[in-house]
Amino acid sequence: MYPQLETDSEQDQRATKVRLLTSNSSGSNPKATSCDTAAKKAPPPSKWRRALLRHAPVFRWLPAYNMEWGIDDFISGITLGLTIIPESIACALLAGLPARYGLCSAFIGPLIYLIFGSIDKVIIGPTSLVALVSVQFTVGRPIEFAFLLTFLSGIVQIIMGALRMGFIFEFISMPVIKAFSSATAILVIESQLKVLLGIKYLVPGLVNSVRTLSSRIHEANIGDLVMGICAIVFLLLLEVSIRVDSTIGWLATSDFLQLLERVARNKKRGKALRIFCRYLSTSRNTLIVFIAAIVSYTWLGFTEHLPYALSSNALSSLPNFTVPSLTIETPERTYSFWQILNELNVGIIVIPIVGILTNISIGKLTPKGLVDTNHELLTVGLCNMFGSCVQAMPSSGAFTRYAISTACGLKTPMANLYLGVIVLLALGYLSPYFNYIPEATLAAILICSIFTLLDFKLPRRLWKESKRDFGIWLLCFCVCVLFGVEVGLFVSIIVTALHLLFLWARPEILVKIEELDEMQFISVVPGNGIYFPAINHLRGLVLKACTQAEFRITVVIDGHKISGLDYTAAQGISKLSSDLCRQSDASSSTLLILYRFPAHLQHLIDVTDNLVFCENETKVKEFLTQESLRNGYINLKEHIRASIDLGYKIDIE
Amino acid sequence: MYPQLETDSEQDQRATKVRLLTSNSSGSNPKATSCDTAAKKAPPPSKWRRALLRHAPVFRWLPAYNMEWGIDDFISGITLGLTIIPESIACALLAGLPARYGLCSAFIGPLIYLIFGSIDKVIIGPTSLVALVSVQFTVGRPIEFAFLLTFLSGIVQIIMGALRMGFIFEFISMPVIKAFSSATAILVIESQLKVLLGIKYLVPGLVNSVRTLSSRIHEANIGDLVMGICAIVFLLLLEVSIRVDSTIGWLATSDFLQLLERVARNKKRGKALRIFCRYLSTSRNTLIVFIAAIVSYTWLGFTEHLPYALSSNALSSLPNFTVPSLTIETPERTYSFWQILNELNVGIIVIPIVGILTNISIGKLTPKGLVDTNHELLTVGLCNMFGSCVQAMPSSGAFTRYAISTACGLKTPMANLYLGVIVLLALGYLSPYFNYIPEATLAAILICSIFTLLDFKLPRRLWKESKRDFGIWLLCFCVCVLFGVEVGLFVSIIVTALHLLFLWARPEILVKIEELDEMQFISVVPGNGIYFPAINHLRGLVLKACTQAEFRITVVIDGHKISGLDYTAAQGISKLSSDLCRQSDASSSTLLILYRFPAHLQHLIDVTDNLVFCENETKVKEFLTQESLRNGYINLKEHIRASIDLGYKIDIE
Repeated sequence: MYPQLETDSEQDQRATKVRLLTSNSSGSNPKATSCDTAAKKAPPPSKWRRALLRHAPVFRWLPAYNMEWGIDDFISGITLGLTIIPESIACALLAGLPARYGLCSAFIGPLIYLIFGSIDKVIIGPTSLVALVSVQFTVGRPIEFAFLLTFLSGIVQIIMGALRMGFIFEFISMPVIKAFSSATAILVIESQLKVLLGIKYLVPGLVNSVRTLSSRIHEANIGDLVMGICAIVFLLLLEVSIRVDSTIGWLATSDFLQLLERVARNKKRGKALRIFCRYLSTSRNTLIVFIAAIVSYTWLGFTEHLPYALSSNALSSLPNFTVPSLTIETPERTYSFWQILNELNVGIIVIPIVGILTNISIGKLTPKGLVDTNHELLTVGLCNMFGSCVQAMPSSGAFTRYAISTACGLKTPMANLYLGVIVLLALGYLSPYFNYIPEATLAAILICSIFTLLDFKLPRRLWKESKRDFGIWLLCFCVCVLFGVEVGLFVSIIVTALHLLFLWARPEILVKIEELDEMQFISVVPGNGIYFPAINHLRGLVLKACTQAEFRITVVIDGHKISGLDYTAAQGISKLSSDLCRQSDASSSTLLILYRFPAHLQHLIDVTDNLVFCENETKVKEFLTQESLRNGYINLKEHIRASIDLGYKIDIE
Repeated sequence: MYPQLETDSEQDQRATKVRLLTSNSSGSNPKATSCDTAAKKAPPPSKWRRALLRHAPVFRWLPAYNMEWGIDDFISGITLGLTIIPESIACALLAGLPARYGLCSAFIGPLIYLIFGSIDKVIIGPTSLVALVSVQFTVGRPIEFAFLLTFLSGIVQIIMGALRMGFIFEFISMPVIKAFSSATAILVIESQLKVLLGIKYLVPGLVNSVRTLSSRIHEANIGDLVMGICAIVFLLLLEVSIRVDSTIGWLATSDFLQLLERVARNKKRGKALRIFCRYLSTSRNTLIVFIAAIVSYTWLGFTEHLPYALSSNALSSLPNFTVPSLTIETPERTYSFWQILNELNVGIIVIPIVGILTNISIGKLTPKGLVDTNHELLTVGLCNMFGSCVQAMPSSGAFTRYAISTACGLKTPMANLYLGVIVLLALGYLSPYFNYIPEATLAAILICSIFTLLDFKLPRRLWKESKRDFGIWLLCFCVCVLFGVEVGLFVSIIVTALHLLFLWARPEILVKIEELDEMQFISVVPGNGIYFPAINHLRGLVLKACTQAEFRITVVIDGHKISGLDYTAAQGISKLSSDLCRQSDASSSTLLILYRFPAHLQHLIDVTDNLVFCENETKVKEFLTQESLRNGYINLKEHIRASIDLGYKIDIE
């Protein structure tokens, strides 16, 4: 890890006034875990320098950059470049765009992320997830819609970042993220099946798509299928080899790999071969594309028609840098900006959120652990905004690239530089040759790369350990698969939020009969803060217990777990005391003792005749003694005690 | 209080298996506070009888009905009947309907509520609040829209009740209800000002209305104004007298009342006069209408045109009982059911909610205290559904009628019977005479009755005691007044819900350096349950403290206040332990002790090398001793300790 200078927010706080830790600081200080040693030696940086360090993390690691990192980054960069090229083309096709627009998205993002990116192993570029979601908003519309969607996504991300709205991502729980990615994987695989089979159609929704596929299965082209399956087998073999390499002792499942392994373990030739092996594996996507393209090229020398489909590509030059126009003119009609917004609909909210989601998830996997979501929003927003100027599709980090950068031992975002250059070179010189890549090969690449997102171990674990989380997983997964990922994400966030709200409405409240010096009382222990949705529940429970005890013994509400109380709840407690007063005989009213209530909450509660505050047990004992002197010694019958302890009535007949 | 039989839910529970009190029983047992004495003597009722008792509360009190209650109820019923007649007419005019439709709403509701109603002092009928909201959805449309709105509101209420959705009303906090009713009062008063001034127009929104009023103020008619002001003065005088009567010792503000009081206190004639005084006051609405109508009638004997406007009324017969048609045909166009739904828009959700809101608020004021919202939804839903069959507008309970029924000493819902009969008689025989009631008198009645809802003491108290609640009050009040009550209600519910969600995202977490046998450790005490939105916050705080302590001392998370933990949070805690492992020197990893974590939550957390669970202090001490033996005795410098305790960094330079 490269050393990291002390972040700005800490420096700020040094100068500012005392702030209690309990105050809500809306998660603005995620880099507090960085190593402070460097900062202590350096003189305190100026205001401008601090801002620079905060907003452009490149200046944090660049001064300490060294040869060793350089080599690792160079190798990672080249490998990632070779990986991202076929992946981008495949994503472009998935998004319904010509191949080269994928590449256009794969060079500007990394170059911007190099400067502003805060998560090392995030490599910005097109992803199948974002492509899958964005195609729903651009399908059947002019191609400019895609670029404008990129632009608007960027703007929305920048606005969200500037407004520090990153905290909303904290309301997406892990089961939701996992179900969402598994569902995406399923949808992407399904969408690529038809490409593997050489069948061409475009229908929205998984159900429709499966129905269409099954009705047209007889149109399947054996050439595409063979090409696709060959590619998948090739990719799987090489992917397995990377796992062998990284975790020695893992049993190789193919003879080929065992052979490689055996060779690799030969001590003399071992190291070089193992490195070769690893890079063979990490560049497997490029390799298969390269092989397939050569096959197609050679084959076309002998015959005019290939038995499989090739990807088509419109232009072949470097993209122009042009700010996207906010109106779109086509021969058929002209779209005004408002019409475009209307057509893109919720896309301009969903795409930014989905894009950032991957980055955050990757950030959580990295050792540094804590992600500054707002900074990430700003950075990815910039990537998208500038990306749209070179006709890019919406971009974000991707798990596949994270896996490869980890395998290659990427050290700093410098790798982005090499990656960007490779992609630019490919765009400039290789564009014409993209036409020789078979579509089925690209489908194979997408299918194999998305497999990492399929995770069915989690739901099995959730089923065993937390049924509620499993329910959320299942809901999110089903809705994503059946009604689209954006609907699934939205529904799950709403459901988890409603559950959190419900927790405020029905907090854990323990009601029991307890004894202190043989004096009985009803002990009520609320588990959380008591806010307005819970107060009637609390009152109901207490009144029920009191009714069963015939309003004869004192009620003690133990507030030591209460962290908060609002006006409505405080009024409810006052009202509870008057309920107790009214319900009991005129002669004696039931006393309500509020025990260990935080002092700052006490003033909210109106004091009535039969309501007292106690700070310690001695005081409670005093009041209980007073009450028993006043009312005589009362001992509840066993069945009443049990009724109250169990929360329902036991009848003796 | 009439005796109440033991409710069904208790009986159910008697038979069913043991259920812990802590389980969430979604507030289904609000009658648990009823007196059990009656139930103990009676034989256990059959299943049918129990269902009957639960759904038709009339059978709970009818068997014990006696002469004394009968007299009180009769007097209350008559008084309420005389009150509800002018009030209904005024509300109908407010809702943009002819007068008699108000009366149509005032007899079927009470008769149904007599049987099914669970809150004694709720008298179902038109209210200015509901009228004010519903006019927004029906204005400018055929009159059938109003009846269909009533019908659909009833259906929605019944569906909500059947689905036990009553708990959503718990998410409306008291400041919101109070702000909402104060805003309604302001809007109703503003809407009646133009009637008082005799100016006729209909514009939506307070701002527009005030602007129109001020631009047309020169059209004001002195006749209407005089009539209105006389009525207001009359009503205020009599209203004040009821207060004098109910709270003796209260200083009378007018000479007239002091006179009445002096007479009333004369011991001989005292009692009769005081009763007379009270009924004079409670029937003040009828009285003023009666007087005004007589004045108009007499005046019309001398001249053809009155100097003030009279209310107009279309028909004069008892309403027909017809199920409302789901399509509306007018000479101009035919509305299909979907078109009607589209036109009524959110009205069919807002009206049911607003209607029930008043009933719940009244329920909370009554001694029994706890309202079964679901039962109330079903009952009011029935009232509205049947109401629409006799051309009623949407109905609910009203605070004004609650005040009168309290003043008259209403004992049981039997009063509804007398009230219903009076209204029917009025409809049958008096309808032609409604034409003699001046509009200004009705406006005066509305203004005086809505005054009770204006409450500006609460915001003053909130400002002093709870700024957050004051903020909610202010927001709700302003949005209600400026953008309509339904928008205000919606916005406030969303904002309070978001605040509750925010409390899960940023719970109170105390991080401090503590000592046990001179061994220091970082003590972390989360205040609430830790769910997924909070876990990154917790991790951030702990890692920040650890960084400041240079990862040298043990972290103890004290979970005694934690009531819940989900899978995401549990994973976050596991991850925190590996963060601590990774960040510290390779030689020694920081130990993470989870102290007093509820046993049922422990299995969710993956155990790592440096994570242990402790149940008691002795065990914690053991671990701390082990750690200090392993790492040597570590004592943090004072400035580091302070840094961690205060939550930000103190620098020594």
